[in-house]
Amino acid sequence: MLLNQIDSPADLKKLSIFQLETLAEEIRGFLIEKLSKTGGHLAPNLGVVELTIALHYLFDSPNDKFIFDVGHQSYVHKILTGRKDRFDTLRKYKGLCGFVKMSESEHDVWEAGHSSTSLSAAMGMAIARDLKGEQNKIVAVIGDGALTGGMALEAMNHIGHERKNLMVVLNDNEMSIAPNVGALHNYLSKIRTDKHYAKAKEEVEHLLKKIPAIGGTLAKTAERLKDSLKYLVVSGVWFEELGFKYFGPVDGHNLPQLFETFKQAEKVNGPVLIHVITVKGKGYSPAEEDSHTWHGGGPYKIESGQFIKAVGPPMYTEVFSNSLIELAEQDERIVAVTPAMPGGSGLLKFAELYPDRMIDVGIAEQHAATLCAALALEGMKPVYAVYSTFMQRAYDQIVHDICRQNTNVIFAIDRAGFVGADGETHQGVYDIAFMRSIPNMVMMMPKDENELRHMMKTAVDYNEGPIAVRYPRMNGVGVKMDEEAKPIPIGSWETVRDGEGFAILAAGPQMLELAFGAAELLKSEGIQPRIVNARFLKPLDEQMLMNLYEDGYNILTLEEGTVKGGFGGAVLEFYAERDIYGVRVKPVGIPDYFVEHGSPKEQRQEVGLTPERVVTELKTMLPRKRQRA
Amino acid sequence: MLLNQIDSPADLKKLSIFQLETLAEEIRGFLIEKLSKTGGHLAPNLGVVELTIALHYLFDSPNDKFIFDVGHQSYVHKILTGRKDRFDTLRKYKGLCGFVKMSESEHDVWEAGHSSTSLSAAMGMAIARDLKGEQNKIVAVIGDGALTGGMALEAMNHIGHERKNLMVVLNDNEMSIAPNVGALHNYLSKIRTDKHYAKAKEEVEHLLKKIPAIGGTLAKTAERLKDSLKYLVVSGVWFEELGFKYFGPVDGHNLPQLFETFKQAEKVNGPVLIHVITVKGKGYSPAEEDSHTWHGGGPYKIESGQFIKAVGPPMYTEVFSNSLIELAEQDERIVAVTPAMPGGSGLLKFAELYPDRMIDVGIAEQHAATLCAALALEGMKPVYAVYSTFMQRAYDQIVHDICRQNTNVIFAIDRAGFVGADGETHQGVYDIAFMRSIPNMVMMMPKDENELRHMMKTAVDYNEGPIAVRYPRMNGVGVKMDEEAKPIPIGSWETVRDGEGFAILAAGPQMLELAFGAAELLKSEGIQPRIVNARFLKPLDEQMLMNLYEDGYNILTLEEGTVKGGFGGAVLEFYAERDIYGVRVKPVGIPDYFVEHGSPKEQRQEVGLTPERVVTELKTMLPRKRQRA
Repeated sequence: MLLNQIDSPADLKKLSIFQLETLAEEIRGFLIEKLSKTGGHLAPNLGVVELTIALHYLFDSPNDKFIFDVGHQSYVHKILTGRKDRFDTLRKYKGLCGFVKMSESEHDVWEAGHSSTSLSAAMGMAIARDLKGEQNKIVAVIGDGALTGGMALEAMNHIGHERKNLMVVLNDNEMSIAPNVGALHNYLSKIRTDKHYAKAKEEVEHLLKKIPAIGGTLAKTAERLKDSLKYLVVSGVWFEELGFKYFGPVDGHNLPQLFETFKQAEKVNGPVLIHVITVKGKGYSPAEEDSHTWHGGGPYKIESGQFIKAVGPPMYTEVFSNSLIELAEQDERIVAVTPAMPGGSGLLKFAELYPDRMIDVGIAEQHAATLCAALALEGMKPVYAVYSTFMQRAYDQIVHDICRQNTNVIFAIDRAGFVGADGETHQGVYDIAFMRSIPNMVMMMPKDENELRHMMKTAVDYNEGPIAVRYPRMNGVGVKMDEEAKPIPIGSWETVRDGEGFAILAAGPQMLELAFGAAELLKSEGIQPRIVNARFLKPLDEQMLMNLYEDGYNILTLEEGTVKGGFGGAVLEFYAERDIYGVRVKPVGIPDYFVEHGSPKEQRQEVGLTPERVVTELKTMLPRKRQRA
Repeated sequence: MLLNQIDSPADLKKLSIFQLETLAEEIRGFLIEKLSKTGGHLAPNLGVVELTIALHYLFDSPNDKFIFDVGHQSYVHKILTGRKDRFDTLRKYKGLCGFVKMSESEHDVWEAGHSSTSLSAAMGMAIARDLKGEQNKIVAVIGDGALTGGMALEAMNHIGHERKNLMVVLNDNEMSIAPNVGALHNYLSKIRTDKHYAKAKEEVEHLLKKIPAIGGTLAKTAERLKDSLKYLVVSGVWFEELGFKYFGPVDGHNLPQLFETFKQAEKVNGPVLIHVITVKGKGYSPAEEDSHTWHGGGPYKIESGQFIKAVGPPMYTEVFSNSLIELAEQDERIVAVTPAMPGGSGLLKFAELYPDRMIDVGIAEQHAATLCAALALEGMKPVYAVYSTFMQRAYDQIVHDICRQNTNVIFAIDRAGFVGADGETHQGVYDIAFMRSIPNMVMMMPKDENELRHMMKTAVDYNEGPIAVRYPRMNGVGVKMDEEAKPIPIGSWETVRDGEGFAILAAGPQMLELAFGAAELLKSEGIQPRIVNARFLKPLDEQMLMNLYEDGYNILTLEEGTVKGGFGGAVLEFYAERDIYGVRVKPVGIPDYFVEHGSPKEQRQEVGLTPERVVTELKTMLPRKRQRA
């Protein structure tokens, strides 16, 4: 195995081009085998094997800097930089991270889990390099999907203007996570299908170079004509107009072609864009044939190409999906909006049934949010289906367009709380804090999948402004679904277990499970906390909070979100604003640091979201005497 | 006066084109006169007089919908839709809003104060219209600066793909608030300077139409050739590649040209982009000559073109500016980053002195933030100078790129707290809540301009991660500046007035003034609250909080920020997390709704940020007995 000889990019540079091609095949085999056990982003990484080899062969990492957009396609890079022996721990607790990670290697110079940041990072590094008078190369690798993210386009506008030396590799696999949408996608397709004109173009380009420079009054006309002919020969005029020198399209699985193109591109002064065509899932036919499904996933059987599925109740995503379809049948105003995640957000079935009411905007969380505000103002019921972590990108639009105009936008916030193997870039743990401080917002979290269905109905029936429902990335608890979906009174909590002295206010299924676990442990000691399903994170159940106070309860709040500014804080503020000082309120949630990858259970364990911790906290708060303060 | 006859768009339609031209001049006179007394966005509105007349003349508002990006160029629209008599109250408390405002008129269908939202809004309205089977026109008016905002580009990508009927009017005045930067700007300039080719192009276009369709194998080549020639004749290929039909450039002050172009554009099926060239400040020479200064401002003398300046100590912005220059002299790592606000953020002098270390990225708050993260990783000290309200747009980048990677980025957050006349879209009142919930963040607010200087030094000396200093839009308090800028210990507060029983923890100069005002009122009653300059909003001064508890103080927190999730909540959480229940903490700040325009004083009055309120709150909290709980 050649792969066994590769512990650093230096080892790579000793190989011949034929050996590199062999190595590429070995890496594919390695990935297919390792990921069948750990899961991970198989298809994206199979697509960039040759590209990553070419980068490490031609450039000098870490002096030269590679920036991988999103970072889930960095596995090959990890293999080539001394980390192949850690792949058994991929995405596991304390194991190899599924994204670029600076603490793992000096070759990892920029981290990302969200898309479209690489061009800004490259530009920042280029500016710093030039200010310091250094000479290194900077290469950003960005997918065609990520390129449509607004911040990537902002960066292009800046880069093209400043004309710094940097390389953008457009890894065009004709799709992001879902089939790509957007005018830019159409434009790229046009370039791709023009490939067979390459030879003719070369000849014209050759001719063009022979045209002598023309001076005087004719100069401008001549230049314009030349520009025009350039359009005939250069495929990437759209990029050229933005100030980039365009190269491509080039076959991303052909090492000699890649070498040749990069060598040409290196000579250019100013920013270049190299358009590389790759096949997502390349070399593993199940992944090539259905690269959406194989974008990222769990363990699978290599021969059959079947994922090893955990059995269990339906995921919350699926319950959301079914509820939305059911509601959309009865209500024509409902439209679904997704920023390029129709699969992950559970909208594929909806899209089949209601293609006109399904709006996939591409990777564009900001546009999606403001679009929803406008749809709502025009009488529709937009449902913005988005992961908690990606919703962060629409914060300003949520404040300025959705909440300030008090529009009837429904948020379906998936992956709320710990997300597990994706780790710190993807944790959905800030949404309670940032959403509840925005006026007009209503925010819910169900105790189980049945309540999620009722909450979707609640959201559709609500016409007073924005309303959000957040739910975790996991299976439901397996409860029976009610026959009919009924709205829940806004701001109402529910006592799910009677008790005395203490009340645990828990938001969401994980935290309720935790509360019940603690209650179980306390049984033998004769302590029986009341357990409340705090299903509205905003507004709070004011009546219940007053009753708890009057009945002498101490309160412990439980949330899978940051304690700073979170739900516990909301309860503290509630009493403080009313000059009620008699109630002890203990907020328990996620402490103030970024929690890395692992299973959600391990993540909860690490931060102390355990029954044992809850027991300790409850015991610290001696029960108040029944009294009115 | 024709203007006196215009109470609605219907009145406008009765006029001849010559009368419309007269009306345009009258509107200019009206604006110049009215705004000389109220202040407001003069130059942008002078630039769109004819354009707005054309829209209201040709279309049928409010059935047809006009969406003004940013909305500060909607004054002419307001004049034409029955609001001219309210211009004496412009931007005043309970008066006419300086932006589009739905509660004012049925002709106002979309509100904005932040840029780049109009295309998303137009697309949302177009989708809703088509789903409802309606027929109205939708016209978005967006400036060349706002077009570079990422979300506008996300929207273009979506619009160009879906090919809905809608019109984008690109109001190109060659600048946003500051001179425009970016590759798109260069591209637009190229189009503009090509104007004199118009006639030749027309002839070629005419010829092109005569070329017969070619079938068979040659068809594709012929089409490509035609495309190429199209590039010669059509100026807006960049937009055409994105799926828009491009019209222009057209003189935005020539009504017949505007009419003709809009009529042509109306016939097109699918999205069109009409490139209109306007002169910011048109018709008032001081504003034409210096349209940056005249973008928006206070009252002025019409004849001299001089702003009527309030005398007083330097603005916080100016103190920031001077401090930055002073620090940059000694530290080459310092670079300043602004999203198109070099003037407003006080960076013009810095830019003159350190052109290489001044980075204006255009309207691109997200890119700016991530760029800062990369600069910091490469050893620079980026200072992201941004208004609190616009920083909202970089929330995800602050979480994911700056804080998660724990980069040494300095935030200079201007316009923190109430901003006055700009009103609810611009209030800087969420930053404490959303910044403090992000791990690794340090956040300061000075008590006066002298402390701001020390805080800038503190920020530059700090090398443990991101650090922010927020300051208000107002003059300093007039204190003497210390000779030397010295770092302040991180997380240290300062008692600025001794007292007993109560402690007021106040953040920022306005809140300290408020605290002192309350103390003054309480003097006669023999109550002396301690007043603390809570200059670190994160981390808190833990030692002082423990001392206050141990010494039996009750606490009132004061912040010009939302109470929900704010600084008061941080203090509540501090004690609750430590199981300390003896201290009464009363959070006072901005309640949970959007506060409209007016003076900051009126805004404070409205929400109860007054000495009288503080007195009432303090009296409600009877002092605790000195005791250890």
